[in-house]
Amino acid sequence: MTSLRDRAAELDRTDPLRRFRDLFVIDDEQVYLDGNSLGRPPRATAAAVNSAITKGWASELVMAWDHWLDLGVETGDRLAPLIGASSGEVAVGDQTSVNLYKLAMAALAASGRNRVLTDAGNFPSDLYILDSVARHHGGELVVIDEDPSPEEVASHLDDSIGLVAMTHVSYRSGAMHDGAAVTKAVRSAGALMLWDLAHSVGAVPVDLNGWNADLAVGCTYKYLNGGPGAPGFLYVASDLQTRLRQPITGWFGHADQFSFAADFVPSDSIRRFLVGTPPILSLTAARTGIDVSASAGIAALRSKGTSLTGLFIEAVSEWAADCDVDIVTPIDPQRRGSHVALRHSAGFQISQALRDAQVIVDFRAPDLVRFGFSALYTSHAEAVTAAETLRTILSDGSWPDYPDLRSGVT
Amino acid sequence: MTSLRDRAAELDRTDPLRRFRDLFVIDDEQVYLDGNSLGRPPRATAAAVNSAITKGWASELVMAWDHWLDLGVETGDRLAPLIGASSGEVAVGDQTSVNLYKLAMAALAASGRNRVLTDAGNFPSDLYILDSVARHHGGELVVIDEDPSPEEVASHLDDSIGLVAMTHVSYRSGAMHDGAAVTKAVRSAGALMLWDLAHSVGAVPVDLNGWNADLAVGCTYKYLNGGPGAPGFLYVASDLQTRLRQPITGWFGHADQFSFAADFVPSDSIRRFLVGTPPILSLTAARTGIDVSASAGIAALRSKGTSLTGLFIEAVSEWAADCDVDIVTPIDPQRRGSHVALRHSAGFQISQALRDAQVIVDFRAPDLVRFGFSALYTSHAEAVTAAETLRTILSDGSWPDYPDLRSGVT
Repeated sequence: MTSLRDRAAELDRTDPLRRFRDLFVIDDEQVYLDGNSLGRPPRATAAAVNSAITKGWASELVMAWDHWLDLGVETGDRLAPLIGASSGEVAVGDQTSVNLYKLAMAALAASGRNRVLTDAGNFPSDLYILDSVARHHGGELVVIDEDPSPEEVASHLDDSIGLVAMTHVSYRSGAMHDGAAVTKAVRSAGALMLWDLAHSVGAVPVDLNGWNADLAVGCTYKYLNGGPGAPGFLYVASDLQTRLRQPITGWFGHADQFSFAADFVPSDSIRRFLVGTPPILSLTAARTGIDVSASAGIAALRSKGTSLTGLFIEAVSEWAADCDVDIVTPIDPQRRGSHVALRHSAGFQISQALRDAQVIVDFRAPDLVRFGFSALYTSHAEAVTAAETLRTILSDGSWPDYPDLRSGVT
Repeated sequence: MTSLRDRAAELDRTDPLRRFRDLFVIDDEQVYLDGNSLGRPPRATAAAVNSAITKGWASELVMAWDHWLDLGVETGDRLAPLIGASSGEVAVGDQTSVNLYKLAMAALAASGRNRVLTDAGNFPSDLYILDSVARHHGGELVVIDEDPSPEEVASHLDDSIGLVAMTHVSYRSGAMHDGAAVTKAVRSAGALMLWDLAHSVGAVPVDLNGWNADLAVGCTYKYLNGGPGAPGFLYVASDLQTRLRQPITGWFGHADQFSFAADFVPSDSIRRFLVGTPPILSLTAARTGIDVSASAGIAALRSKGTSLTGLFIEAVSEWAADCDVDIVTPIDPQRRGSHVALRHSAGFQISQALRDAQVIVDFRAPDLVRFGFSALYTSHAEAVTAAETLRTILSDGSWPDYPDLRSGVT
């Protein structure tokens, strides 16, 4: 019988994405499994950002805005194929939470209803924002149990729910919702559907147009490797755009921005969801990352992602029960994203011990250790190494009493 | 009698800020008078951003967040002395318009009133945002005539006005409000005062604490040379912070961000006005720019700024009437900022002709040409050259029929 290590070597040898690892700056001996928090830098990024400084900013000065003004929308068009969106439906800019606020405020107002539905597995920042939005409309946020089925979502819908907002792949469990089925149920009930794609984009297939999704937001610094705090994105279905008015009516959303008119007239395009001058250096890095994922294609990324997570789950399964480890992420590859969450009562200590052993993971309170597998630069051999290192730590059964550090940005 | 050219040479020879020009990338022959739109890059910026990519992001990966998490507040503390604020009252992050929205929404809600007052000279994006905020509270935006005196502001206050928001130095006329007097009048009427410092910070003295100002926002890409679209900043007076709740309740504003708690509990510090993960590359550039201005000190910057604008106004005054040019900016140096606005019926054509002659200015519809003087890198000789070039263009009395280009970002 072939060992896991041998199978990993064979999978890596025949990996269609193998050459993509060389497109990243990797100058360490670490097994980096936190690309779902902050992706690695593409090699092209430093040069692209430097060029924006030395050729754009320094040489062209204010005239460089002639080609920067549309960068958020142009970058959105490059991202669109990764999420099943059409040209003109996506813009990159602002932080994910700001984008969520804009779209949720606009959607709830348009719905004529005042309650928002989500599930307890949604990212906390999303819960906070959605709660604020619902209260602003005199309603409330309804939070149902984590990782609900489409039927469970449907069972909570009524004519008071104007918006359902969920994170497509849970930042905790790694479970992936059925985007088509949930969207269909929500729209059938007369509500609008908003997906947070932070842990999906660049990792799993998303078909916003095919699902008939109304709205989406997401982040570019995880699987898209856009850089620390790189701008988020937003999606608004084309037929919905002119029906929505978002409240942060900045000049970049104006129909005729440089008329400096006294009154706000919203653009009739995706631009109406923009606000102010975008951070060009961070946006340039985001675009570079997006281009790498776009050139790989989501089918290849997904195929390798499930192969990596599958191999890791298989390896851990052999001894998980003996070591009090619970595999939280769904075993069915169709139901999970590209990270695997393991539950252990000493999760925080274990995550620190893994980092000390050069396997970089992160911890989500109270007891989850997350192993993120970025198909662009992670090998099957690394997945096996991570499992073996974890087993060694658990077998030893002792670990230092690490101080409680803040452990990075989701 | 000494010529203007000779006086300029003498002023440049004795300029205490002369060495600061060498801190900037200046590899062109242009007279760049649009630093009030997009400041020039400091030489240190490219290396600082590259280091954030290669040493921070690439080498430390997600662990770099241990020193990035507080970057917005740390950078705010560096900026604070330039605007008369105390440590813990300023944060850098988000775009100016997003910051304005957050603070205006919070302030109007706290005031218990529902009308907002501003003047017609405020930047259009501010007008749009303030209008949106007032409407959200069931009120309206009251817009009084451009560049009002403190008495004129006071005459429009009543117990329906909860917030007065004005841009301290007008993006159009370059006129500077009396910050102390306006703030005093507004607070006496029981309203909150919010200053937009976009065209003030790094150019003119601002004393938010001394004025007893409640709130401020501003931008770092003009006189602070923070880079294209660099994040804006916000200021909230320390005694006001815990009384305000802003609506975009993202996780960076949470009292215990990494607890991932289900409910939002606002930080009891300036952090409650933050939202999401900040764009680190753009924020790094902003900090580099802020440090240059902070090291020069606002007194020296202001002194040279009035010297530059004064010399330019003096030069233009000699022939302005003959050439149908109206000097819109106040002649009194205490009443103006660091740009000079000239009105001419062919303003757009003239601004283009100046650019073709390597004097980079910008145009604001319908008829203003703006000449911005950044004390850090602009010489008195350049101010004279700009005036002479303009006179030549006007004397010729003919210019090409330039197409109507978008002319950069204010």
